[in-house]
Amino acid sequence: MRTFDIRKPDEAIKDALTDMIDNLTKPKGALGVLEELALQVGWVQQTLTPCLRRPQNVLFAADHGIVEEGVSRSPKEITWQQISNFLHGGAGVNFLCRQHGFTLKIVDAGVDYDLPYDKGIINRKVRRGTRNFLYEAAMTEEEMKLCLEHGVAVTDSCIAEGSNVLSFGEMGIGNTSASSLWMSCLAHIPLEQCVGAGSGLDEEGIRHKYDVLHRALDNYRGDGSARDIIRYFGGLEMVMAVGAMLRAAERGVLILVDGFIMTNCMLAAASLYPDVKHYAVYGHQGDECGHRLVLQALGARPLLNLGLRLGEGTGAICAYPILESAVRMLNEMDSFAHASITKYF
Amino acid sequence: MRTFDIRKPDEAIKDALTDMIDNLTKPKGALGVLEELALQVGWVQQTLTPCLRRPQNVLFAADHGIVEEGVSRSPKEITWQQISNFLHGGAGVNFLCRQHGFTLKIVDAGVDYDLPYDKGIINRKVRRGTRNFLYEAAMTEEEMKLCLEHGVAVTDSCIAEGSNVLSFGEMGIGNTSASSLWMSCLAHIPLEQCVGAGSGLDEEGIRHKYDVLHRALDNYRGDGSARDIIRYFGGLEMVMAVGAMLRAAERGVLILVDGFIMTNCMLAAASLYPDVKHYAVYGHQGDECGHRLVLQALGARPLLNLGLRLGEGTGAICAYPILESAVRMLNEMDSFAHASITKYF
Repeated sequence: MRTFDIRKPDEAIKDALTDMIDNLTKPKGALGVLEELALQVGWVQQTLTPCLRRPQNVLFAADHGIVEEGVSRSPKEITWQQISNFLHGGAGVNFLCRQHGFTLKIVDAGVDYDLPYDKGIINRKVRRGTRNFLYEAAMTEEEMKLCLEHGVAVTDSCIAEGSNVLSFGEMGIGNTSASSLWMSCLAHIPLEQCVGAGSGLDEEGIRHKYDVLHRALDNYRGDGSARDIIRYFGGLEMVMAVGAMLRAAERGVLILVDGFIMTNCMLAAASLYPDVKHYAVYGHQGDECGHRLVLQALGARPLLNLGLRLGEGTGAICAYPILESAVRMLNEMDSFAHASITKYF
Repeated sequence: MRTFDIRKPDEAIKDALTDMIDNLTKPKGALGVLEELALQVGWVQQTLTPCLRRPQNVLFAADHGIVEEGVSRSPKEITWQQISNFLHGGAGVNFLCRQHGFTLKIVDAGVDYDLPYDKGIINRKVRRGTRNFLYEAAMTEEEMKLCLEHGVAVTDSCIAEGSNVLSFGEMGIGNTSASSLWMSCLAHIPLEQCVGAGSGLDEEGIRHKYDVLHRALDNYRGDGSARDIIRYFGGLEMVMAVGAMLRAAERGVLILVDGFIMTNCMLAAASLYPDVKHYAVYGHQGDECGHRLVLQALGARPLLNLGLRLGEGTGAICAYPILESAVRMLNEMDSFAHASITKYF
């Protein structure tokens, strides 16, 4: 299995960045989170004049064997139907990509349908959906390895196109179930706090979902290591996103983290390589009940809290202008000395 | 004194808007606050295809007599020095205006300094700063009337230029003191919960500020009506913003509300004409201690919570892309029927 060389960026530059931010024409700290973000971006990019180049949203899609157990309100067909909608530009993620200048890459990581690859979908299909993890591992070692490698390749292609900031999103009916199990096992959070409504289950539906997932945990006979948990319960699109995130960090690229699923992918990535977290900017805290807890486990403070629960990368892309503002603050705002203003702090 | 004809937009269109939003290709409610905003904008503009045209940030500036009592950490000179910084494009509000395509209008409502009007500052100076409200009314009836009229004229000029969405900001050392008194009197909130650090007071400074404001309240001998409170304790820039907001609502224009000061201007406007609130979009909840309470009094849920405390309109402008997203959602997202997707709700 591929290993990743992920390093904490050199801290030496932080003093100069802090000094620069504190001397901009505003009371110290008055631009709040923008100041924290500017520090992070400058630190990750190792420069006092950071920039954001060619943002892309990479949307990984796949199906989940566990859907056979009735854990989702939406039928499996929604996965490929929505991909068709992405292609036509009519989905939530599309208008946000247009608004904020993101390129949208749609990656078939494992959809159980023959997609039209000639129309721009990137074919990285590892298999037609995962196995049902109620009875067996969702994927083999070899399939997990392939997912990580494909994720690496997709990130590399984005970087080759000039991107230095990437958002990752997903489409996969059933992937809140996989995420709940990752979160419960990797962050040691009781399962009942990890299970939510997904795309709209009612109370009975949530109870059934919890029951299925609880049985899946009971049936699990693996070694309990992060890698094994990721493989056993993971979605193909989720493991591919983990590989893509790890590669982004390895190459010094900022990672915009979307909602519940992608936050769990960051959790999985961080459980393998903790230093990946330095590269993460958390876009949004959604309403899915476990999202707050997994963010907490990561020590993350998301930029937005708009009640989004669509996935696709929408929460991350919505937050992008705030990241841009932080970069503009550093590059465009005057210092007290230069503006001839009495420094009042 | 001018009266305003502010009406609640016709509710008849809301059903059609809700129906349209619920049939977009996403689980019902999955775009959270974007859906609520889309409903509000469509309702205010009375259309299923709303648009945002030529956003402007109008920044009202003035000085405050109460600064003589040592209620602010920043010297009064910062007011005009920052205006000079706005003119040169080096302040916080400038990079945000550039980023989001806002025109910046700087209005001298009452700065105690001779500003260079030939460089683009709009001269609406009513007097050189307010009187010290510890001992007397901040402004006369006539001055209040002038402020409101100037606010109306500025909004009218923006609308004449094609704007249908306006953000209002302020610069005025001392204006958190005026805001704390408005808020305490108009929303009946105990004064100690309304007084904060402003541009950076320490605990002793806040205690002194509270003490001064408390004495000002004790000395007040007016009739306690909203109009009298606004006049007695108000800033010239604040009353002008109230006039500008009321005129915006009268003409069906969306109002982006910034931080602590501007939220108090909306509170003052709403205490005169409650229906102005339908036109307000709250951009940001800052760290100033009373801000949360005044937002609560208005029943407002701001879009962002980024710890900004700069004023100038920065919190409102930062939130603008979210408003744009809501409008794009309505205009660009496909319906289930059109996209041939199984409607899963």
